[in-house]
Amino acid sequence: MYGSIEFGGTKIKCAAFDENGKMTSDIWIDTGNPTNNLKKIGEFFKKNPVEKAGVGAFGPIDLNEKSKTYGHIQNTPKKLWVDFNLLENLKKEVCEKIGLVTDVGLSLIGESQKGAGLDTNSSLYLTVGTGIGGAYVQDGKLLNGYSHPEMGHISVERLKDDDFKSSCTYHKNCLEGLASGPSINKRLGKNPKDADLKEKPFKIAANYIAKAIYTYTLVLRPEVVIIGGGLINKEGFIELIREEFDKIKGDYVEVKTSEKYIVKPKLGNDSALIGGYLLAKSL
Amino acid sequence: MYGSIEFGGTKIKCAAFDENGKMTSDIWIDTGNPTNNLKKIGEFFKKNPVEKAGVGAFGPIDLNEKSKTYGHIQNTPKKLWVDFNLLENLKKEVCEKIGLVTDVGLSLIGESQKGAGLDTNSSLYLTVGTGIGGAYVQDGKLLNGYSHPEMGHISVERLKDDDFKSSCTYHKNCLEGLASGPSINKRLGKNPKDADLKEKPFKIAANYIAKAIYTYTLVLRPEVVIIGGGLINKEGFIELIREEFDKIKGDYVEVKTSEKYIVKPKLGNDSALIGGYLLAKSL
Repeated sequence: MYGSIEFGGTKIKCAAFDENGKMTSDIWIDTGNPTNNLKKIGEFFKKNPVEKAGVGAFGPIDLNEKSKTYGHIQNTPKKLWVDFNLLENLKKEVCEKIGLVTDVGLSLIGESQKGAGLDTNSSLYLTVGTGIGGAYVQDGKLLNGYSHPEMGHISVERLKDDDFKSSCTYHKNCLEGLASGPSINKRLGKNPKDADLKEKPFKIAANYIAKAIYTYTLVLRPEVVIIGGGLINKEGFIELIREEFDKIKGDYVEVKTSEKYIVKPKLGNDSALIGGYLLAKSL
Repeated sequence: MYGSIEFGGTKIKCAAFDENGKMTSDIWIDTGNPTNNLKKIGEFFKKNPVEKAGVGAFGPIDLNEKSKTYGHIQNTPKKLWVDFNLLENLKKEVCEKIGLVTDVGLSLIGESQKGAGLDTNSSLYLTVGTGIGGAYVQDGKLLNGYSHPEMGHISVERLKDDDFKSSCTYHKNCLEGLASGPSINKRLGKNPKDADLKEKPFKIAANYIAKAIYTYTLVLRPEVVIIGGGLINKEGFIELIREEFDKIKGDYVEVKTSEKYIVKPKLGNDSALIGGYLLAKSL
């Protein structure tokens, strides 16, 4: 049996998988106090014992194996989790063998092996929701140098008439600060779900996301860019991103047509949990 | 015996190495007509036969192994080389077993295994000269998704009073267009070698290079950034880049002090040829 855990900003999802990749049991827990959360996770895996588990955590988390604080959550707005030794606690409550990556990394493992990146050797996963995060995989290996990428925080060139105050406390012009869910919400003055796609903030956000994808394309050269996260469920939004991308990219680098290059996840909400199973199996 | 070839914009360097990594013979050829160049390369390796060779080529070159034009030079300003089947011709003139990467990639292999990246698992090599190019290695594997990176062409945010016309024909605000050797030359109105480092174009270029390094840092998280290329030989220039980087990076991501993070190559002009030997040996 293999375990899989996705630590999200609002929910923690745990699942147990059998040898054939069939999910046999799962549970959703509200993200809250880490001690209580870990206790509940422990209870689930007591009922569903596993030998290996793949885990995706919200960041920033120290993923530098040489570091003394490897597996610790770092400086996050979720104050209760700052400096929490996630890896150690998971080893106590779940099992000894834990594969630890970011939440985006876990989704990417799922999508690259069983979903939208199936026929490629290299794919990028971008999540656009409360925050913006990215992960890249090449030949089955996740990009993870000193630690995990922080792709959502690269600078994007502002549109001329855009004087929106970045919602990122660190960067005035970063993608997350200008185009994440909360930024679009603030720009619209309402929940993006309730707004018409023709409202300007969607086009602005699509432009910034497309600019960032062009930068990732030049630096990483992925064969496919998979975009997940809440905002992508807004009908027509991914088409807007593709339109903006086509204008920006010009003829310089060769990529597939944007319909084939910029795509939605194929495993829907299960990308991460399936990724956790695959990661566990590879340990 | 192992062969190593570095295809540069002005010179092609060929070398033969023995089993212990000692260079036993080498030759420099002026980059010109590809047929003549390949003939000379063939003559060198007839006198110095090798079984395997590592090759670094100027780009753009198709490094997608699944592609029909794998190993062909692509659309370069060097008109005679456009669509030239480099790999096929090297196989005829040098040996059957050829490892092919970009020129920057070859330097990075040398530096990451025997030079400035020795104690790291992940390093970035940036060359700042006639053009600007980058390569990234993690756990001994070069980043190469759909094809090689085009890092020199990412957008950087212009300084307010900088209305210099980009020297890149494709991008108005890309790093290469604003901060490469020819760009600084044009900004100065003279060769950078003959100019005082206090002249403003150096600080402008250092700012753009530092901004790009911050983007690469967020996307790739290298443990070290090695900068080579002609401009870095300008005394004091790398210190300027570090100064600008320290201002830009703030507290968001953890990196070493800029003196340890942004460094010069340790193998000097031999990074690429030694990289070629190491690449050949790994085949």
